[in-house]
Amino acid sequence: MDNTNPEVLARAGLTHIIEPNDQTGAALVQVTGAIDAYRLIREHTGPAPAREQQQVAELLDAHGASRSALRLDAGLERWRPRAALADPESDLKLMTRLGGGLIAPQDPNWPTGFEALGLAAPLALWYRGDGDLAILRDTSRLVAIVGSRDATEYGRTITAELVHGLRAHGICIVSGGAYGIDAQAHQAALAEDPPTNQSPGQRTTPPTIAVMAGGLNRFYPVGNEDLLKAVHRQGLLIAEVAPGATPSRWRFLQRNRMIAALCATTIVSEARWRSGALSTAHHAAEMGREVGAVPGSVFSANSAGCHRLIREGAATLVTDAAEAIELLNLPVQAPIPAEAVPGTRDSGTTEAEDRRDYDGLPIQDLLLLDALPVRIPRTADQLAIVAGLGMGSILGGLSRLAARSLAERTGNGWIRRFPNGREPQRGAPTPR
Amino acid sequence: MDNTNPEVLARAGLTHIIEPNDQTGAALVQVTGAIDAYRLIREHTGPAPAREQQQVAELLDAHGASRSALRLDAGLERWRPRAALADPESDLKLMTRLGGGLIAPQDPNWPTGFEALGLAAPLALWYRGDGDLAILRDTSRLVAIVGSRDATEYGRTITAELVHGLRAHGICIVSGGAYGIDAQAHQAALAEDPPTNQSPGQRTTPPTIAVMAGGLNRFYPVGNEDLLKAVHRQGLLIAEVAPGATPSRWRFLQRNRMIAALCATTIVSEARWRSGALSTAHHAAEMGREVGAVPGSVFSANSAGCHRLIREGAATLVTDAAEAIELLNLPVQAPIPAEAVPGTRDSGTTEAEDRRDYDGLPIQDLLLLDALPVRIPRTADQLAIVAGLGMGSILGGLSRLAARSLAERTGNGWIRRFPNGREPQRGAPTPR
Repeated sequence: MDNTNPEVLARAGLTHIIEPNDQTGAALVQVTGAIDAYRLIREHTGPAPAREQQQVAELLDAHGASRSALRLDAGLERWRPRAALADPESDLKLMTRLGGGLIAPQDPNWPTGFEALGLAAPLALWYRGDGDLAILRDTSRLVAIVGSRDATEYGRTITAELVHGLRAHGICIVSGGAYGIDAQAHQAALAEDPPTNQSPGQRTTPPTIAVMAGGLNRFYPVGNEDLLKAVHRQGLLIAEVAPGATPSRWRFLQRNRMIAALCATTIVSEARWRSGALSTAHHAAEMGREVGAVPGSVFSANSAGCHRLIREGAATLVTDAAEAIELLNLPVQAPIPAEAVPGTRDSGTTEAEDRRDYDGLPIQDLLLLDALPVRIPRTADQLAIVAGLGMGSILGGLSRLAARSLAERTGNGWIRRFPNGREPQRGAPTPR
Repeated sequence: MDNTNPEVLARAGLTHIIEPNDQTGAALVQVTGAIDAYRLIREHTGPAPAREQQQVAELLDAHGASRSALRLDAGLERWRPRAALADPESDLKLMTRLGGGLIAPQDPNWPTGFEALGLAAPLALWYRGDGDLAILRDTSRLVAIVGSRDATEYGRTITAELVHGLRAHGICIVSGGAYGIDAQAHQAALAEDPPTNQSPGQRTTPPTIAVMAGGLNRFYPVGNEDLLKAVHRQGLLIAEVAPGATPSRWRFLQRNRMIAALCATTIVSEARWRSGALSTAHHAAEMGREVGAVPGSVFSANSAGCHRLIREGAATLVTDAAEAIELLNLPVQAPIPAEAVPGTRDSGTTEAEDRRDYDGLPIQDLLLLDALPVRIPRTADQLAIVAGLGMGSILGGLSRLAARSLAERTGNGWIRRFPNGREPQRGAPTPR
């Protein structure tokens, strides 16, 4: 939208003055509109005008958010000290120069997912980067992957696997641009999709979006500067605070609610018992979005947060990309072949195949199978006694087992056979 | 019970003739009683007597178990070949010599948990060992710990931790006597409770019970012989099949249902995607018993079965003994101190304590905290602008933060303070 548009100018100013998730501010904007709200905060002195005071209180009540601290005059007292310092024109000029701008709720690219936030929705969205902004509307193609800052090699590996599988389905990976799991998620998404020489102005669908807690004029944290520059080149950075705003504790916590609201699904790939990633997951669950969490060693403090979410029922246990994609409720995937199922791939024992050979056999045939000798043949009569089966079951069973190459006639008796020449393991003749 | 008791003799004979979970056999015993059922199988020739045929069919129907294969005459055909070989007197003599015997449903020590099995309940229970049989009645003190035969070091470690915590609550550990997790569970339970020099005949509450798939005359599998001998000395071995019965595939599968029925809770500490331990867990879940499963690395095939159970909702995720004990619904434990909570113990960052310092602070104080400088003091006026707060909130907040030693007055300004001299980490001034 046009930087001279009064709505855009007013909202740019408001993002400088009103903290994220200040519902009194959101209520005022809803009551008077952004332009009048901005004017009121800058120009009005003394107690809040009675009509607005009343309407804001009613709106907050309607959202069950009313508390004395949320009264309009308390809000005005909070906002006025900053109002004088707001300079939306120069903020907008700066962000345009940095390859970004402001999205107002009237903008066609305003994130659909923000509707779920009600009065907690951002007043406007600052962005920076070359990615196509249209992705913001497409909640179902946005998946958040978040986790603790002090990621382990385990957490990094599973994060990269999840990103790889999700990118293969054209999913855009959303995270918080922080150290650890966030950085790995962005990194893996960028690696999947090498930068193309696009002509200036030509925007492509971003592989990843970084949702920042501070102003987009700088790349923060410093240790992620190169990574975030790459996100700028190939994707998008977004924030609800004005350029120059520091990434404060409060803004970090509120940033988490934005990530959750933006995405159809949030996956916590590795998180400590107390981690901001858990607040993101809880925000998502409260909004009825899908939440996944990756389990790990019970001795790893870095998986304790994921286990906590699963135990609380706030998250579904997710072990690979296929299970993450299940959460998206995309068109159903082809079933995973048993060979690809964990526990059968690189299987140390023959248990898995072993069991498959016998699946679907009636009880009598299992009993008969157990009665078949490996070397010295037994007659049908002997088998009837050993297996505890009638002659009818014995003869029918022998033909069924022979058909599966599990039994073989030799002379006037029968012996056990093993498909693919597999012999039972020593000391473990049967699966438990 | 007395080995000459006709009920005991009949049931001892029936365990030799009728396979575990042969519901036609259970129905016949219910219709005619064990003594007449045993006589009928041994002495009756030709088609099944009409009245019993009819009553067995009705009983099976009532249990929704009726199928043509379950008709009484089909059963008689199954059982007759073995009936001639049954010798309950010598079986009972043998087991008495081996320090065991038979428990019939009329016995006061008959497992209470078997009621849930209905027609699938064992016809009788063979036992062996010096443990007090009364434990079998006390379902709430019996916990099954099961898993795959090819356990990893991870699985062995968490199994030992679970056993340790459960034994501390006087829980008896039940498992299947197999290799891997089973063996580790028995071993850990025995280690907790060194053998005492008890006078012969004096029975003490067993630390562990091994539920065997084959006859108790031999210790199987051979590799576990020493372990199972120790279980004999300190605990109990039980089986529903007669001495001499081989541990067949079918009997292994049925053994799992007995473990599940015996215990209030079943915990799978490590299991592959397809493992008998999962069938034990599913039996337990179907009976409405508590089921727990321990998560692990998503790259470990040996944890895939546990993850599967949790995803299917068949098991609760369990990471330590405290969470296993929660499943028992015992009198509530004292809450675990945060220091003992995974993710805060051996915590690499100060995030956890960090967060605790700020818990319960109102929003305004968090904003103010973020605005406090670390070195050069700011006045209340400056703080009002930086924090975006009114002067009232600033002054009230500064006193609250000072009370928590989070803020300190210096000259005419204020600076940030860190409890226990903790400084924020470089590049990570705030939790995410």
